[in-house]
Amino acid sequence: MDSFALIIFGITSNLAQIKLIPALYDMAEKGLLPENMSIIGIARKPMSPKQFQKYFHETLHLQNIHHQHEIKEEIFKQLSKRLYYVDGHLDDSQFFAKLKDFLNKLNKSGRPCHNRIYYLATYPDLYQHVFKNLQKQRMNQQKNGWVRLMIEKPIGHDLSSAKALNKLLLKYFTEDQIYRLDHYLGKETLQNILTFRFSNGIFEPLINKDYIDHIQITASEDFGIGRRGGYYDQVGALKDVGQNHQLQMLAFSTMDAPSEFSNEAVTKERLKILQKLQPLPQKIVFGQYEGYRNKQNVNPKSNMDTFYAFKTYITNERFDNVPIYIRAGKKLKQTVTEICLVFKTPVNRLLKHLDCGDEPNVLIYRIQPNEGIVLKILTKVPGHEAKLEPEYMQFCYRADPHSHKIPDPYERLLIDTIRGDQTFFNDAEEVEAQWAFIDPLVEKRGKPIIYKPGSWGPEKADELIRSDGREWLEPSMDFCRI
Amino acid sequence: MDSFALIIFGITSNLAQIKLIPALYDMAEKGLLPENMSIIGIARKPMSPKQFQKYFHETLHLQNIHHQHEIKEEIFKQLSKRLYYVDGHLDDSQFFAKLKDFLNKLNKSGRPCHNRIYYLATYPDLYQHVFKNLQKQRMNQQKNGWVRLMIEKPIGHDLSSAKALNKLLLKYFTEDQIYRLDHYLGKETLQNILTFRFSNGIFEPLINKDYIDHIQITASEDFGIGRRGGYYDQVGALKDVGQNHQLQMLAFSTMDAPSEFSNEAVTKERLKILQKLQPLPQKIVFGQYEGYRNKQNVNPKSNMDTFYAFKTYITNERFDNVPIYIRAGKKLKQTVTEICLVFKTPVNRLLKHLDCGDEPNVLIYRIQPNEGIVLKILTKVPGHEAKLEPEYMQFCYRADPHSHKIPDPYERLLIDTIRGDQTFFNDAEEVEAQWAFIDPLVEKRGKPIIYKPGSWGPEKADELIRSDGREWLEPSMDFCRI
Repeated sequence: MDSFALIIFGITSNLAQIKLIPALYDMAEKGLLPENMSIIGIARKPMSPKQFQKYFHETLHLQNIHHQHEIKEEIFKQLSKRLYYVDGHLDDSQFFAKLKDFLNKLNKSGRPCHNRIYYLATYPDLYQHVFKNLQKQRMNQQKNGWVRLMIEKPIGHDLSSAKALNKLLLKYFTEDQIYRLDHYLGKETLQNILTFRFSNGIFEPLINKDYIDHIQITASEDFGIGRRGGYYDQVGALKDVGQNHQLQMLAFSTMDAPSEFSNEAVTKERLKILQKLQPLPQKIVFGQYEGYRNKQNVNPKSNMDTFYAFKTYITNERFDNVPIYIRAGKKLKQTVTEICLVFKTPVNRLLKHLDCGDEPNVLIYRIQPNEGIVLKILTKVPGHEAKLEPEYMQFCYRADPHSHKIPDPYERLLIDTIRGDQTFFNDAEEVEAQWAFIDPLVEKRGKPIIYKPGSWGPEKADELIRSDGREWLEPSMDFCRI
Repeated sequence: MDSFALIIFGITSNLAQIKLIPALYDMAEKGLLPENMSIIGIARKPMSPKQFQKYFHETLHLQNIHHQHEIKEEIFKQLSKRLYYVDGHLDDSQFFAKLKDFLNKLNKSGRPCHNRIYYLATYPDLYQHVFKNLQKQRMNQQKNGWVRLMIEKPIGHDLSSAKALNKLLLKYFTEDQIYRLDHYLGKETLQNILTFRFSNGIFEPLINKDYIDHIQITASEDFGIGRRGGYYDQVGALKDVGQNHQLQMLAFSTMDAPSEFSNEAVTKERLKILQKLQPLPQKIVFGQYEGYRNKQNVNPKSNMDTFYAFKTYITNERFDNVPIYIRAGKKLKQTVTEICLVFKTPVNRLLKHLDCGDEPNVLIYRIQPNEGIVLKILTKVPGHEAKLEPEYMQFCYRADPHSHKIPDPYERLLIDTIRGDQTFFNDAEEVEAQWAFIDPLVEKRGKPIIYKPGSWGPEKADELIRSDGREWLEPSMDFCRI
């Protein structure tokens, strides 16, 4: 692995604290960071090198952030040798001259900075200043190495703003320099859907309209917005997780086989699905949990959605007329993210007349918790009676004591960026296809239906699927128990 | 459940001790025996009622017989009220008159004997005497109740003797009175193959020549013949487990869907497979483990097989040209019984070029140990490399701490007989189809190849499958661990 400099704009941001700094520690612990690479944090507040190290160290020890493993001082010491800090304002061109000087000096001191990642952990309003100034200093040019830009969702807030942002990005960078993060794409449990489908021969023959009755995708949380009112009340559930995470979950589980496992081939297939999604504005329900309006930084008269449920179709031959039901929300009954492919029940199914004999088979990609890929089946209850019961054929990530550790998505995506692999990032067209689908649904937002915390959202969401003679599946915790 | 009398000819036999007596205790414990039913044991040795009860009690406590649960005195006490004993010789017509009297008296004393099961736990040579004498006393007639006969495998020792025995049986009983036991058919793990295949819609579309490359069936034991030399040296492996258990395993996993879950419909489909099996006498290997000839009651020059491996085809449209490899033996590397449906690897499988990327999917019906139905699949090794590893999607019988107890096959089959359900018994035609297939293979028995205990049998058995470009699968203990 070539050495490089990772320049993080907004090192004191929430994102940096919660995701990037822990991921960098993990990468150091696993030996995934070259000895002479450097991490250059940028924020407005002046800090001495010592103060910055202290900030980094304290951040790692913040409660609820790095609770999964202990922080080893030995590892931190090694990591801290690579830590640098430059303070400044991102709309100040002087600052970028200073940053350029800093990187040049660093380079001469034996820490190569020809290869660079700019990580934008900052407000979208500041992007244009950063790009303009990087160009002014020719810091966006790939001279003796590569320059890559990591940029977080949301990319825009609707199709036209996404187009504008993509246009802006492409003014300063080429598409192969731009790494648009949707951290869901960095999840092992999502990536493995592709491996599962296309490295095994036995599932693909079943994944089509002949065998599938419908598809359900759920992303529910039993907690509320916490302190994110300021952000959330601008965005709402549909834009926060529907436009990106859930559409990608759908794309992974329904896309055709790529011709090879490359960025071009995989992205092309994802895109084909996203572009074929049919928005049905008359088939969406918005909800808001009781108590949302009293939260900090939320408009007391807010009509923002904390829940949605909608129906869609993929208008291709493979999934012609297979309904897809998607829902997500906060303060719901359970925290669970899963994709369910519900199979048709054969007309002549044996023992259909028994209790539960008519229950459908379901292929469940459980993203979290109880991570796994499982098939819901019917089996005979051992004993003398002809009795059936639902059971699961389970592949589980964590249930096996010998199982591997699942790396954090940010770690996965940082590594991919370092390697120049864009497979699990969104390209411009993809983001725009997502907005093109979501925009007509967003337009239907009006007064959301208020729902009780701990419920499954508004009753209307149940009616949405029930009117088709179907039911939302209750997510099961009976498989992949640890 | 109507009351009945269970008359066991040969209550002191090995079979009665190891299987029937423990099964009856279990049934008593589970409340599966009507209060006023009776168990009438028959053997040559005179025993007082007290002595018989003592024999029954001691048998239950024999080491290695009832090790799975404790014997509760309370349960035994209830059971013992139903225990009766009549001594006599089975070729003595006087004895049957005595038995008839005994049953009449029992009947009058409040223990109904109109419904009767005759269980033949005795040598086949004695069958004809039993039948003739039962007829003489009109004890085979169904007057005020039903009369059923339970008879153990082997049914004959080749096609012509099986035909003769079936003819004999049908002289005294009708087919619906005859319960031919192959205790494998009483195994939950075998019965559930039908439920699994036909109560779920997603597997059947894959179970055919389009998706299956070949089938393997293994029944291996890591122990030898023990004290069974006298029996075993007359029979050999192929007749002992090949003619019955293994052919039934094949039938269950390849038969077409029955039109309904009834004896007629299920047996018909099993029979269709058995009658379509193609014997390939040039494709069988016989082996004998080193040391077999020194065993008690074994001919020191014996050429009897303790191992065999053969290839066959089902000559129907569904499995046209799908090779089936079957092997079984004693003193092999592992004790395991399983059916493996090995799927074809799609030409365009993604990540095929990686280590193990070309490994086939396998559907494994594990009869024992680690009982379950599992799919061998490939998944992504969590982490930053594109790496695959074989994994299993597992449905397990025992691994779940909440799982049900699996009843013993003899218990299952006794209950079925009491209920008059012949679904999991062999009918005459079925047994004859099995012999018709096995006879040409038996004819190829000559000098078996001597193999090392602890091996997988003779090298020739590996060549048998290797010459087709395939390999025996090493049975895995990595799934359904308890």
